[in-house]
Amino acid sequence: MYRCWLRYDKIKNKELMDSYIRLCSQIVTDMYTPIVNSAKAELTNGLFSMLGTKPNISKTPRGSSFIMLGILGKNEYIDREILESEKEKVCKDGYIIKTIDKEKERFIIIASKTEKGILYGAFAFLRFMQMQRDIDNFYLIDNPHNPLRIINHWDNMDGSIERGYAGKSIFFEKNKIVNNMDRITDYARLLASVGINGVVINNVNVHQTETRLITKEYLKDVAGLAEIFRNYGVTLYLSINYASPIELGDLDTADPLDERVKQWWKDKAEEIYEYIPDFGGFLVKADSEFRPGPFTYGRNHADGANMLAEALEPFGGIVIWRCFVYNCLQDWRDTKTDRAKAAYDNFKPLDGLFHDNVILQIKNGPMDFQVREPVSPLIGGLENTNHVVEFQITQEYTGQQIHLCYLVPMWKEVLDFDTRIGGKSVTVKEILSGSFYKNKYSGMAAVANIGNDANWTGHQLAQANFYGYGRLAWNPDLSSESITDEWVRMTFSNEKDVVDTISHMLLVSWSIYEKYTTPLGIGWMVNPGHHYGPNVDGYEYDKWGTYHRADIHGIGVDRTVKSGTGYTAQYSKEVMEIYEDINTCPEELLLFFHRVPYSYKLKSGTTLIQHIYNTHFEGVEQVEEDLIKKWQGLKGKIEEESFNHVLERLNMQLEHSKEWRDVINTYFYRKTGIKDQLNRKIY
Amino acid sequence: MYRCWLRYDKIKNKELMDSYIRLCSQIVTDMYTPIVNSAKAELTNGLFSMLGTKPNISKTPRGSSFIMLGILGKNEYIDREILESEKEKVCKDGYIIKTIDKEKERFIIIASKTEKGILYGAFAFLRFMQMQRDIDNFYLIDNPHNPLRIINHWDNMDGSIERGYAGKSIFFEKNKIVNNMDRITDYARLLASVGINGVVINNVNVHQTETRLITKEYLKDVAGLAEIFRNYGVTLYLSINYASPIELGDLDTADPLDERVKQWWKDKAEEIYEYIPDFGGFLVKADSEFRPGPFTYGRNHADGANMLAEALEPFGGIVIWRCFVYNCLQDWRDTKTDRAKAAYDNFKPLDGLFHDNVILQIKNGPMDFQVREPVSPLIGGLENTNHVVEFQITQEYTGQQIHLCYLVPMWKEVLDFDTRIGGKSVTVKEILSGSFYKNKYSGMAAVANIGNDANWTGHQLAQANFYGYGRLAWNPDLSSESITDEWVRMTFSNEKDVVDTISHMLLVSWSIYEKYTTPLGIGWMVNPGHHYGPNVDGYEYDKWGTYHRADIHGIGVDRTVKSGTGYTAQYSKEVMEIYEDINTCPEELLLFFHRVPYSYKLKSGTTLIQHIYNTHFEGVEQVEEDLIKKWQGLKGKIEEESFNHVLERLNMQLEHSKEWRDVINTYFYRKTGIKDQLNRKIY
Repeated sequence: MYRCWLRYDKIKNKELMDSYIRLCSQIVTDMYTPIVNSAKAELTNGLFSMLGTKPNISKTPRGSSFIMLGILGKNEYIDREILESEKEKVCKDGYIIKTIDKEKERFIIIASKTEKGILYGAFAFLRFMQMQRDIDNFYLIDNPHNPLRIINHWDNMDGSIERGYAGKSIFFEKNKIVNNMDRITDYARLLASVGINGVVINNVNVHQTETRLITKEYLKDVAGLAEIFRNYGVTLYLSINYASPIELGDLDTADPLDERVKQWWKDKAEEIYEYIPDFGGFLVKADSEFRPGPFTYGRNHADGANMLAEALEPFGGIVIWRCFVYNCLQDWRDTKTDRAKAAYDNFKPLDGLFHDNVILQIKNGPMDFQVREPVSPLIGGLENTNHVVEFQITQEYTGQQIHLCYLVPMWKEVLDFDTRIGGKSVTVKEILSGSFYKNKYSGMAAVANIGNDANWTGHQLAQANFYGYGRLAWNPDLSSESITDEWVRMTFSNEKDVVDTISHMLLVSWSIYEKYTTPLGIGWMVNPGHHYGPNVDGYEYDKWGTYHRADIHGIGVDRTVKSGTGYTAQYSKEVMEIYEDINTCPEELLLFFHRVPYSYKLKSGTTLIQHIYNTHFEGVEQVEEDLIKKWQGLKGKIEEESFNHVLERLNMQLEHSKEWRDVINTYFYRKTGIKDQLNRKIY
Repeated sequence: MYRCWLRYDKIKNKELMDSYIRLCSQIVTDMYTPIVNSAKAELTNGLFSMLGTKPNISKTPRGSSFIMLGILGKNEYIDREILESEKEKVCKDGYIIKTIDKEKERFIIIASKTEKGILYGAFAFLRFMQMQRDIDNFYLIDNPHNPLRIINHWDNMDGSIERGYAGKSIFFEKNKIVNNMDRITDYARLLASVGINGVVINNVNVHQTETRLITKEYLKDVAGLAEIFRNYGVTLYLSINYASPIELGDLDTADPLDERVKQWWKDKAEEIYEYIPDFGGFLVKADSEFRPGPFTYGRNHADGANMLAEALEPFGGIVIWRCFVYNCLQDWRDTKTDRAKAAYDNFKPLDGLFHDNVILQIKNGPMDFQVREPVSPLIGGLENTNHVVEFQITQEYTGQQIHLCYLVPMWKEVLDFDTRIGGKSVTVKEILSGSFYKNKYSGMAAVANIGNDANWTGHQLAQANFYGYGRLAWNPDLSSESITDEWVRMTFSNEKDVVDTISHMLLVSWSIYEKYTTPLGIGWMVNPGHHYGPNVDGYEYDKWGTYHRADIHGIGVDRTVKSGTGYTAQYSKEVMEIYEDINTCPEELLLFFHRVPYSYKLKSGTTLIQHIYNTHFEGVEQVEEDLIKKWQGLKGKIEEESFNHVLERLNMQLEHSKEWRDVINTYFYRKTGIKDQLNRKIY
């Protein structure tokens, strides 16, 4: 399970094996840079593992078949075979893979305009071989759609991981950076294999010890990590404490307009870049959930971010500034304040005031990584500010890697969402790619789900979320089905039954999880603090701005302009109108946007209350039918260790889904007194 | 505030001062034992502080007026003046105080049959002087009603206190026993002043470090504490870990019937008594909330307790075994299991099987220190087993020393409760005193509310709970009013206005707190874990067996024999019949015993739902009217520091009581849809 999708199992099909061996006995390149060396090493290792013979590596071809790695325009073999029109199609960090079949020579070209592109091409080539594709007539040009493809780690230096469900940090232990770099190298391989090009190694909540990561005490070790990642084309970033000048004992202020503070950060940037010449920059959570920030000094987010941006600018660094800013001391009695509006209200007025090496990082929904949310109106709403989306791979509210909840379909919905900005069709993925607003920086970020568990992600099937995020960051046009197919084939088997079964399980899992948890987009019915398990009123009388307001008559938050909080006005006119009208509002978001009586008839003809009961019973039944029974059918077809491990998790999921079903149904039954039409057991 | 009720303020009334000085210029005794020395020191210090002159201490009278301390039957002055009939009325540790007015001599006798009695007499004498009583014609015989008058500390050796709301432990710091013994001496004085004669210094949840308290590593320091307490007549006890033989690395079992385990505890007892010859014994929480116990070995509580009792018996030690045993992994869907029944179900079948140096310690109610519970049927239900009640002075569920909640009236209700055992009138206090069943050991225990805060109890007025518990343990026949009067006079002032005001505040406070928290005995509507603040469903879907089962129709747990869990059958027939019938069940316990529709008419004529609304509005109003406004009237009449401190707490209470009011009212309004008849604000 440790190898994830880079298993490189030995090819069993003899014919295929022969065809692969014919083309893959030699790797030719005249490049010896670290990144190309990584590509060579991965190819060597992968081919040896799959084919049983180690390819030779040479500067020039020694036989009649080989794999050629090189930079477009700088390699005579490649330039001879790749047309100018093809070259033009290969963008920065993209690649072309092409099988050349000549009389005397048959070889495969993996070429790019950059070293990273060669590495990505190598991984892609290995992916296709793992999927047992024909390579005799290979032809592919593939480019990354998003410039920034970043992973955020919420790792603390004591080794804990905030919202981590897969063991301890692979970076930190006992307030030090770990010694063993093998695992980190393997992690860098996994990242590069799906095209991730940035990693933030520490938690956005920067505590006391982590504040010192940007000091001499730790920078040498951080530079060691940066080197490993660099070899795989991954840039290292750090989360910083906005109050660092104070916390580190140098100044008595962190005011971004104070000259001493500006100078302090300039000096600090210079110091960091001495250790890490290609340091990516800072990720900042400021003035959010009790973290320090520019508000303390009467400054705004633009003041705060720009000051850091000026310090990093001479070195090419960027500031990624999170938009997760809201009133976390709300009075539950206050029905006017709407947390959903907070990010937009805070940042939209600042649109255009940020330097061009500042990027705002916006959670995909307006609340916080619930199982179902509308897309944040700030994405695309910012017309003159670089921004990236923030997804959450780690399953904080989506089952904590005990429940199977494959998030690729959710992310796809977000990416394909049509914002209708300016009255035209403009999808989120177009905005994120930077093509719509012509942003200098844009792309995607996501919070990692990995830890030092042997299988990386706690639940082995949660590896698919890690994989899927990377693939979507590279190419958001990929379908959920094709990503899933790739992952299952590489991780388990190319056997049809296995591929079909696991693909099905993954693809229905989000829907199943949604069914037995909170209904129709209302969210938040979880235990406070750890966020696991059902608790309908868990946040209802709390200060976090997350309320369902269920009473005897109905449930939901009216966020319309007409009669509610007015949140819908943050969207384009066309989208606003859809959400504003209960008849056109997508039903899966019904309770997010509207307050609805239990007797309300859904399009299916069932009432809201009956829908709640139905989905909760169905969800649990599906855990049994669509997950457990299906999985049991794989006995003997996949490795026993994996089989048993996943079955154990699925059985836990079943128990916990029953808890969800019974608590939610009981809560609403007790509140409404309305019986289930099918007389199923409610307590 | 540090001095609590041992303030010994200088007497301002000149006439009174003169009369006091006349009689108190000399202390006469021929005894020089530690306990009598403590009495002398307290008198010397108290008199000097109140009168401004230090009394002489001598072996024989040197003038015509003095205070004489001595043992009845062993002191010629005393024996001359105290009649045989009077002597007979003085029981062990009781005392007589008598003013002798002769032609040539006027003196006060403080005498007892024991040294402790002399100490208690001295404190009583000082109490009366602080209350400005006439001592020219003093005559009092006073005896302790309960043999055991114990304080339990839930202190951990890291300095934390489980359910502590007044700072850190005064005994432990950083896994050591503290060095500074001054504070502990003052604590011993406070204990002795109200007649407490036993102290358990560590938490019943005995963690790793605390397990080692009974080893050489700590016993020397424990002996140091024991000496301080001994000088004030207080016996030291330790909470022990039932699995000590394993935890301390000596055996691989703690099976109470295993000879090696028996011998281990015998050796351990011998070792402890070498250090502390008058060691009290062990307090044990076993097989409760995940603590180890005899169940592991298929043995019962009697097996477990008796084995320890045999080890302590040769040294006169006792085993205090807690009855707080229940299923803490209950499924909320299970409506058959009733936690209220657990203590009785666990221990009643073992009645008569315990050795006579085992005492069962029973929480006052069947659940766990809620603001309102019926009396545990195990008290008195055990006919052939020593038992003590366990009260909780520390305000876990009663406002955590932020809310004013004077518990003496609650304890009085418990003590005065008529169990009707055997069809006769038998109050709890009669049972606890040992007089009813002629127990070898009996009495009262309570969990301390003190810590190292400057004022000991966090909220200064919470000192009254500490005082009141001690006074009731000494004499449960004292009225709430008289205890309150004593405490206010000693702590604040003898001024009528101050006495009346603070007494009123204290005496109404429990009722106020009850009004705005959980209604009619149902309990548990608190935030899980820390137990502060309202959360109606906080424990509703949890595993602790604490459910209100509110639905659209009604609320409450049917614990009747007729149609419910059958809990009422644990009481005597007469009491059972009262609780069984909704018409005779005391209304303050209505929802504890019955499931009741919201439309149910209470005796007042209001419906249940309207009663909930009314009491919650009233409770908050009373915080303003009966507490804050009253207190504000004391400005200038008490020390400013106290005034401001208490006002600050009261203002916090007001805010938090509003939170209680609004959450509870809103919860029920949303659940029932029934409006408040007075149209007050519900959210």
